[in-house]
Amino acid sequence: MNGHVHLEESDMYESDGKLFLSEAFNVIMEEILHKGTDRKEKVCEWTEPDQLRALMDLDLRENGESHEQLIQRVRDVARYSVKTCHPRFFNQLFAGMDYHALTGRLLTETLNTSQYTYEVAPVFVLMEEEVLRKLRSLVGWSEGDGIFCPGGSVSNMYAMNVARYWAFPQVKTQGLWATPRMAIFTSQRSHYSMKKAAAFLGIGTDNVFMVKVDESGSMIPEDLEAKIVQAKSQDAVPFFVNATAGTTVQGAFDPLNCIADISERNGMWMHIDAAWGGSVLFSKKHKHLVAGIERANSVTWNPHKMLLAGLQCSVVLFRDTTNLLMRCHSANATYLFQQDKFYDTSLDMGDKSIQCGRKVDCLKLWLMWKAIGTCGFSERVNKALALARYLVEEMEKRDNFKLVSKGHFVNVCFWFIPPSLRGKENNPDYQERLSKVAPAIKERMVKRGTMMVGYQPMDGHVNFFRMVVVSPRLTTKDMDFFLDEIEKLGKDL
Amino acid sequence: MNGHVHLEESDMYESDGKLFLSEAFNVIMEEILHKGTDRKEKVCEWTEPDQLRALMDLDLRENGESHEQLIQRVRDVARYSVKTCHPRFFNQLFAGMDYHALTGRLLTETLNTSQYTYEVAPVFVLMEEEVLRKLRSLVGWSEGDGIFCPGGSVSNMYAMNVARYWAFPQVKTQGLWATPRMAIFTSQRSHYSMKKAAAFLGIGTDNVFMVKVDESGSMIPEDLEAKIVQAKSQDAVPFFVNATAGTTVQGAFDPLNCIADISERNGMWMHIDAAWGGSVLFSKKHKHLVAGIERANSVTWNPHKMLLAGLQCSVVLFRDTTNLLMRCHSANATYLFQQDKFYDTSLDMGDKSIQCGRKVDCLKLWLMWKAIGTCGFSERVNKALALARYLVEEMEKRDNFKLVSKGHFVNVCFWFIPPSLRGKENNPDYQERLSKVAPAIKERMVKRGTMMVGYQPMDGHVNFFRMVVVSPRLTTKDMDFFLDEIEKLGKDL
Ligand SMILES: Cc1ncc(COP(=O)(O)O)c(C=O)c1O
Ligand SMILES: Cc1ncc(COP(=O)(O)O)c(C=O)c1O
Repeated sequence: MNGHVHLEESDMYESDGKLFLSEAFNVIMEEILHKGTDRKEKVCEWTEPDQLRALMDLDLRENGESHEQLIQRVRDVARYSVKTCHPRFFNQLFAGMDYHALTGRLLTETLNTSQYTYEVAPVFVLMEEEVLRKLRSLVGWSEGDGIFCPGGSVSNMYAMNVARYWAFPQVKTQGLWATPRMAIFTSQRSHYSMKKAAAFLGIGTDNVFMVKVDESGSMIPEDLEAKIVQAKSQDAVPFFVNATAGTTVQGAFDPLNCIADISERNGMWMHIDAAWGGSVLFSKKHKHLVAGIERANSVTWNPHKMLLAGLQCSVVLFRDTTNLLMRCHSANATYLFQQDKFYDTSLDMGDKSIQCGRKVDCLKLWLMWKAIGTCGFSERVNKALALARYLVEEMEKRDNFKLVSKGHFVNVCFWFIPPSLRGKENNPDYQERLSKVAPAIKERMVKRGTMMVGYQPMDGHVNFFRMVVVSPRLTTKDMDFFLDEIEKLGKDL
Repeated sequence: MNGHVHLEESDMYESDGKLFLSEAFNVIMEEILHKGTDRKEKVCEWTEPDQLRALMDLDLRENGESHEQLIQRVRDVARYSVKTCHPRFFNQLFAGMDYHALTGRLLTETLNTSQYTYEVAPVFVLMEEEVLRKLRSLVGWSEGDGIFCPGGSVSNMYAMNVARYWAFPQVKTQGLWATPRMAIFTSQRSHYSMKKAAAFLGIGTDNVFMVKVDESGSMIPEDLEAKIVQAKSQDAVPFFVNATAGTTVQGAFDPLNCIADISERNGMWMHIDAAWGGSVLFSKKHKHLVAGIERANSVTWNPHKMLLAGLQCSVVLFRDTTNLLMRCHSANATYLFQQDKFYDTSLDMGDKSIQCGRKVDCLKLWLMWKAIGTCGFSERVNKALALARYLVEEMEKRDNFKLVSKGHFVNVCFWFIPPSLRGKENNPDYQERLSKVAPAIKERMVKRGTMMVGYQPMDGHVNFFRMVVVSPRLTTKDMDFFLDEIEKLGKDL
């Protein structure tokens, strides 16, 4: 015998486990999917950190707990978590709930495999290939490459790294000491992941040149040219330009064709961060917003945002057909990617990734796509844009709302002007006082739990709200409610 | 009206969705959790790629499908996927199924939030903090830092990047052109993510010095010293040494105290990749394997491997108490990390990450921990090691098995010597013929679906099997079955 270690199986294990899972599933259904999507219920149950710590009893102990205690824990987690599936959750660039996508997620979690080889993920290797093919075809590419990544920031990093390898292949083995200083270009309003990528990849944030934007938040091509000249004058080699299709705050679209012209003239890799805006590709009516996207070398697109696939679901797509992605990232580990397998090992794509184990992120999108079809996505995108437009129109009818700028997408950025500030635009402390309005309203909103929407300052603009319309469950009534509620929350400010 | 876009909600949406989810849940229960864990059922239903493509009908179309068709799709995905929860799945460093962890995963997926701020993830921000604290205390640190990452490879990259920033803070802004050439040290048998990290971070794979190992796969400290001298002679600055606690193939543990001495003497950052072996920290009996771990600057640990948390669940822990992780990665995005919030914004930890949206990976581990307690993990670890030892003992009784080396962990690396090769060790084609045995057995095994175990070559060793004991459901009978089955599959080779 092996000391005191019990080597056999307890019969209870499987049946107890399944019982727990089933009961927890019912709690999840009730607390999150029924109550959490009900307009009459709260979006969040605000609790102060210290109070929540105590309520949740987070401490991990020597011994386990009873079935009943554990079910109560499931209930508590559900209760005190924000209901991002609630129709009045507008706080991030994801919202709502698609039941087919959720089913795909449950299936993924239960199957618990890794995306690296056909051997352990036969269905998902083929499925990822198909979903990527289909997304590429929406971009306008009949060939190419791509991969699912843990989020858009990482997708952007992949693009930057592949571009660098394309420009300076020696970097993979010799590092940046073997290359000239490099320059990256991206707009002032692009996502901060560009800077994070430059830092992480060893390029440095000073080598990210921030290109100016117009009032709507869209890159000014002339300034891109000026910045390229500036970089060259500093002996930095321009190799990568990032255009944003749907900026984070304003939802602005950079002029892709102009940027493509400039990239081509300068021999640069053009990446498009369409993490947020890429989904307009589904809509005949709105895809003009990304006209020229097919000229890019790479595109980031997050189905976990507007398409409701659920976190995490992000892809980076490449126009390249020379296996650049694999050549850039491969390490040829023999324990995973044996070449003497009995099947076609070109299906073992894991070496394209910088990860080893890689979550299956394609199934949730695939199943939802099977359920609603390409035209279902198209309808959702059209509806979201129409509702955002409706909201803007209604806002313009009320004189206590002021738009930050006219947007083209589903982001609606605005100030609420409370009674005490109306007509006081010229007072010296106006901006200072206005900057306090959104935080005050936000606090009341969260504490009441009626809805959630984010705010932020932005160069020269004091704190304003960013409303985003994502969930297909939303209606014009929700838009009206939104405006009424902001007015109600801010009426005495 | 807004053109032809329908702006109101369909009543059917919610109820149809919930119905689908419930029905799919039953299919998942039946097909994966009942059948998939049944020893009498197959681990996998091998299907050739072309055949599987046709069977699955992966194509994504214009229109959606019916409820019945979609339920059939759920069934098909389950059927043709590998059952990693099956007691005879030994192919990777994860296996088995914990129902509490799975419940945590379902809850995570349904709540669908991102880990960046207290505002949208109140429960999970506090929970991550608590889980990290507890994992750090097992390492032996009463203070420190850490974060959940999308897998051990990314955790290793974090450690390397933070170490680089610690050694050369200017790298964040100016890039590697502002630093001397750097050198990284890791053993020949360490995980390939070290090379991937060096390439991705712009350091280059040539600057990774591969330190020799002994027969068991454990780093030879004298060679580490020699490699440091060599690096210095090439004007590369040694800044980072990676010690592995549980190598991928052999399960070897590097001598941590010796390596810590050398790191300290040379002013280097010491990282420990305990992605695989870290879980011995739960066991009083076996934690001597990682003696000295508390001397490291950072540790990678994957609860998705031996602890059965489910993919993805990986942490990188830091001994640092000076907020190095945040300083290294922060970009201070104002739209997420507003400083004028109404709660303590030091809870908004998202800027520590290189990601923006970040999946909640702590809940599954936390819930499982609540369910079985620290001592439950300890029992599981002890059982796995005892079973691996049992397997080795049984193997030694049979003369058609030959161990590659004596292991200390749950990896059992061995050759099966088929009848035709027995006693032929001195034949000139012995190694060549032996190298074909594992692939041949693997093919038969997968096609029969009775079990799954991986094989690989390793410098100077032709293809051998790597058996890993992970799942707490395993018994000595499963070990016996394993040996019998290999013999059966290879008897005519
Ligand atoms: C334009 C843009 N790009 C990239 C990202 C990053 O995506 P993720 O949160 O998946 O990392 C975001 C996130 O909001 C974004 O708005
Ligand atoms: C020792 C070691 N480190 C790191 C990793 C990478 O972990 P992940 O697959 O989560 O990226 C592995 C994976 O097997 C490993 O064995």
